Amino acid sequence: MTTLAITGGQVLLPDITVTRADVLIDQDDGEILEVGDDLAGDADETLDASESLVTPGFVNGHCHVAMTLLRGHADDKPLDAWLQEDIWPVEAELTADTVRAGTELGVLEMIKSGTTAFADMYFFVPTIAETVAEAGLRARLGHGVISVAKDEEAAREDAREGLAVAEEVDGMGDGRISSAFMPHSLTTVDGQYLEEFVPQARDLGVPIHYHANETADEVAPIVDEHGVRPLAYAAEKGMLEDGDFVAHGVHVDESEIGLLAEAGTSVIHCPASNMKLASGMAPVQRMLEAGVTVGIGTDGAASNNDLSMLDEARDAAMIGKLAADDASAVPAEAVVEMMTRGSAEAIGVDSGRLEAGAPADIAVLDLESPHLTPRNDLVSHLAYAAAASDVRHTICDGQVLMRDREVLALDEAAVCERATESADDLIARAEE
Amino acid sequence: MTTLAITGGQVLLPDITVTRADVLIDQDDGEILEVGDDLAGDADETLDASESLVTPGFVNGHCHVAMTLLRGHADDKPLDAWLQEDIWPVEAELTADTVRAGTELGVLEMIKSGTTAFADMYFFVPTIAETVAEAGLRARLGHGVISVAKDEEAAREDAREGLAVAEEVDGMGDGRISSAFMPHSLTTVDGQYLEEFVPQARDLGVPIHYHANETADEVAPIVDEHGVRPLAYAAEKGMLEDGDFVAHGVHVDESEIGLLAEAGTSVIHCPASNMKLASGMAPVQRMLEAGVTVGIGTDGAASNNDLSMLDEARDAAMIGKLAADDASAVPAEAVVEMMTRGSAEAIGVDSGRLEAGAPADIAVLDLESPHLTPRNDLVSHLAYAAAASDVRHTICDGQVLMRDREVLALDEAAVCERATESADDLIARAEE
Repeated sequence: MTTLAITGGQVLLPDITVTRADVLIDQDDGEILEVGDDLAGDADETLDASESLVTPGFVNGHCHVAMTLLRGHADDKPLDAWLQEDIWPVEAELTADTVRAGTELGVLEMIKSGTTAFADMYFFVPTIAETVAEAGLRARLGHGVISVAKDEEAAREDAREGLAVAEEVDGMGDGRISSAFMPHSLTTVDGQYLEEFVPQARDLGVPIHYHANETADEVAPIVDEHGVRPLAYAAEKGMLEDGDFVAHGVHVDESEIGLLAEAGTSVIHCPASNMKLASGMAPVQRMLEAGVTVGIGTDGAASNNDLSMLDEARDAAMIGKLAADDASAVPAEAVVEMMTRGSAEAIGVDSGRLEAGAPADIAVLDLESPHLTPRNDLVSHLAYAAAASDVRHTICDGQVLMRDREVLALDEAAVCERATESADDLIARAEE
Repeated sequence: MTTLAITGGQVLLPDITVTRADVLIDQDDGEILEVGDDLAGDADETLDASESLVTPGFVNGHCHVAMTLLRGHADDKPLDAWLQEDIWPVEAELTADTVRAGTELGVLEMIKSGTTAFADMYFFVPTIAETVAEAGLRARLGHGVISVAKDEEAAREDAREGLAVAEEVDGMGDGRISSAFMPHSLTTVDGQYLEEFVPQARDLGVPIHYHANETADEVAPIVDEHGVRPLAYAAEKGMLEDGDFVAHGVHVDESEIGLLAEAGTSVIHCPASNMKLASGMAPVQRMLEAGVTVGIGTDGAASNNDLSMLDEARDAAMIGKLAADDASAVPAEAVVEMMTRGSAEAIGVDSGRLEAGAPADIAVLDLESPHLTPRNDLVSHLAYAAAASDVRHTICDGQVLMRDREVLALDEAAVCERATESADDLIARAEE
């Protein structure tokens, strides 16, 4: 057994309190052996965490990681126009190579900002899976199935790809890669295909992940056509079960919050994307009170425009208070829970907590900086004041992916260069 | 004449476009001599800006800088309870030494995040002025005048201090320090004192700055008592003139937006504070359309919890869209304008623009990082993706305050140590 001790830090415990402790890791199994005092002695290797906060690696519950190539490509437009004029024309030109370049860039940014696991819906998923596996992160991946503007054969083919991909990538990266069946949304996949393919996904044993109730504009047509709110419609289609997770959940009413809580379906809150696209404010405090598991996601970098879960946590606390019209809503402890265990539970990975037996997915944040001084409350600092640049070490599955801000898992300069070239080429092809 | 050339960068021009250029500075006069090609040749000194974005130093339009000591001291509470239970008891224990320690910390954080000028309302203002002058920043400072819970003599004494301080600190720091008369708000200073002292402030020739229309709760009592909206009341009291600036402006109606535009009174938008205290969403897009000068401020670190104008700019774009229910509202260009020239005009300093004759107040941001890759749009990156840690050089009044992330103006470790000790001592005294 090869062991690694993270020593001298302030450790964020599962009850969202902070205590002075060491963390001992079994690198072979990728598990935490112990959180406690003086564990450096027997370790094969140590990682310094003095003047630092040791937290569970952050879990990004909803992303389109390859879209990192489109950061800043088109801002300040409503969702529909943005998708139709700026995003889809570019995505029509995607190749496996561009997806690899975008995924590398996004994964690099995640490692640098302390994210160790994420859920992702996109295209060329086997390429994404290979790239994530090589980089050392944990992820639940799926193909975004869409039927609108396709004939029946093409729609079925796309859904079959969604199933095939879910089967293909599951278990890659020494088990760090898992999968889901990911119909894009309740309005972009016709009901007949949901009825046909969701049961097949259940046979595969993978969860269902989709965009739901993101904008007010997508709720009304479902109510008109099906006579019920979107999440009741999702339940009718068998897409609201324990372990399933939806992105956004902005425009959910009390009946839908009740359905989510009862079903054990989780919500990934994407505050930056919801603000930037003016989609609205998710009732996160109400969902938490109703017992819904809520995680946090960045969505793609094109609507954010970064992948830092620390920015996202601050956004979640801020907009959560506005949505509830109550400054005590969605407090620091809640967002810290949401960005770690909440997201982990939502996407069905076992990380998000620092305790014996948990996966060794860990971020270590440097506390020695003016913007984290004085250290009146480290949980508050994590929610409100810490930044991606404070992350000094990132560990996933027991492996050190970044040490003292040096990324070991990827060649940072080469990844940025390939991403720049790929983005230029991709956008140029879309504009031809 | 001693000259400094900032070479090889991408320069943000006053029309919010970016071009490849050098910037030549007269360090003796603290002015920009030229923005153009190949200016390194004759300069006494050069500062490398390759792979970097050269922007006007950010202008923080509303702050309580000494409150940086209270970062994370009390979060997640509504404005009234937070002030009464957590902030005022601590502020009752303030001394000049604690204010100095807090100001040093805040100023250090500002320098590190590219802020070169700010407006500040607080207590022990001569101490703040000395500290800011020593650190090399530009600031408009004032004493927060309050009459509630004071007898007439104490209230008058406080207002007189407001005037005396405005006279005393004006012109300090080789003219980098200016002042304003700062009644705390329209509800915390009784009308009789406004009538008595505002004209005296006019005689001094300083602008008026105050909190206005921050929460819905403060609007109703003014309407009830005076029969007009708060900013009409402010106009009656002579506090809505050209050069005056109010903080927040969350709950302003169309009539008040008209008054602001007509008067030439500016608004400092504080999005993070407004979200964190659940105060509401300012109608920034409407104000911009009406021709109101809008700047951006962080407010104090106790309600933010950091002083980075880059975080604040992103918040402003995000909440501006939500408030307008329109993703095209408050676009990247608008927030970049607001965080530079908008704030500068609002608080009455001449900076916020990179052109010949402007004060040499400049921030240089490192673009070589994954979260700013690819460089699809540098104005977008400044608004949405750049972080405090990207700032590599900060120049104010022609002097280099930070070079390659090393703060020259202050001893970073010593400032953080003094701030930590002062905060611990201050909070302990308040809890006694």
